[in-house]
Amino acid sequence: MFCVRNAFSSSVKRVLRTSLTSNSSEYNLIRSRSISSDTIRSWSVGKINHVAIAVPDLEKATSLYRDILGANVSKSTPLPEHGVYTVFVELGDTKIELLHPLGENSPIEGFLKRNPAGGIHHICLEVSDIHKAVDSLKGKVRALNPEPKIGAHGKPVVFLHPKDCDGVLVELEQE
Amino acid sequence: MFCVRNAFSSSVKRVLRTSLTSNSSEYNLIRSRSISSDTIRSWSVGKINHVAIAVPDLEKATSLYRDILGANVSKSTPLPEHGVYTVFVELGDTKIELLHPLGENSPIEGFLKRNPAGGIHHICLEVSDIHKAVDSLKGKVRALNPEPKIGAHGKPVVFLHPKDCDGVLVELEQE
Repeated sequence: MFCVRNAFSSSVKRVLRTSLTSNSSEYNLIRSRSISSDTIRSWSVGKINHVAIAVPDLEKATSLYRDILGANVSKSTPLPEHGVYTVFVELGDTKIELLHPLGENSPIEGFLKRNPAGGIHHICLEVSDIHKAVDSLKGKVRALNPEPKIGAHGKPVVFLHPKDCDGVLVELEQE
Repeated sequence: MFCVRNAFSSSVKRVLRTSLTSNSSEYNLIRSRSISSDTIRSWSVGKINHVAIAVPDLEKATSLYRDILGANVSKSTPLPEHGVYTVFVELGDTKIELLHPLGENSPIEGFLKRNPAGGIHHICLEVSDIHKAVDSLKGKVRALNPEPKIGAHGKPVVFLHPKDCDGVLVELEQE
């Protein structure tokens, strides 16, 4: 169902891997096509790690996924350093993450004021190298935290500005 | 990371599978605990099939995922019977589905009027048996289409009311 993004790009990468140290005419020909360093990508985006849903009633939301839809769910876990309670809903090798405010200045307090019924707060995509990803995105997509910080899963994360991502808050997480 | 939803429930299912035709005291003991027919679930929820994002500029959105984040993406596909153009972004064994209005009365026209920058329109979860799922949800979660209809992937789908799903439009799709 999916076309390969750029079949030429794949063959270029193969050739360049074997030619980068040579001065062969083949290598020079490829260089002359102005393949940017981004095309020879040193990091990749992976699967959706989770979809985060901010909910006004954590027990009710948990019950929907556990008791009505029959998914495996985690216990409610307080993450005071992130200002949220979380419940993970296991869905294949990805998950929904239910978020509920914890303490003062929870980062989802404002979201729930604007969306009292709840709603999708962000999506999280895994990347193979968060630092290379951040470098590569500079000047193209604004990051809310310019340097990776440790996220709720104990891994480095960066949040991308919704205005640069079709109105969606996108989190990139080191896989 | 995930606890089993109900360890007792799993063991009950195992016992019941081997005991349903027997009159053993073990079976009767379990029945006396009032395990509902829903606990002995005849359908299951699976992975996230896709996260659908309504976008005001399909080429720009495609470029974000293809050129900046480096994902494999499909060509733009018009689905006139659903009133959308779609682009699929491959992310592991799940995907983002970019949606852009096509024709009059597109179902995402109103969403984009309310959210001109775009935003997450719905999430789609796979279920093993859409008809059993619909029967099981009756009286618990409202469906926007009470009977399954053929969705954009050619499979039966049901949309659940956002007011019953923490402000999130949830699509269930036959896996």
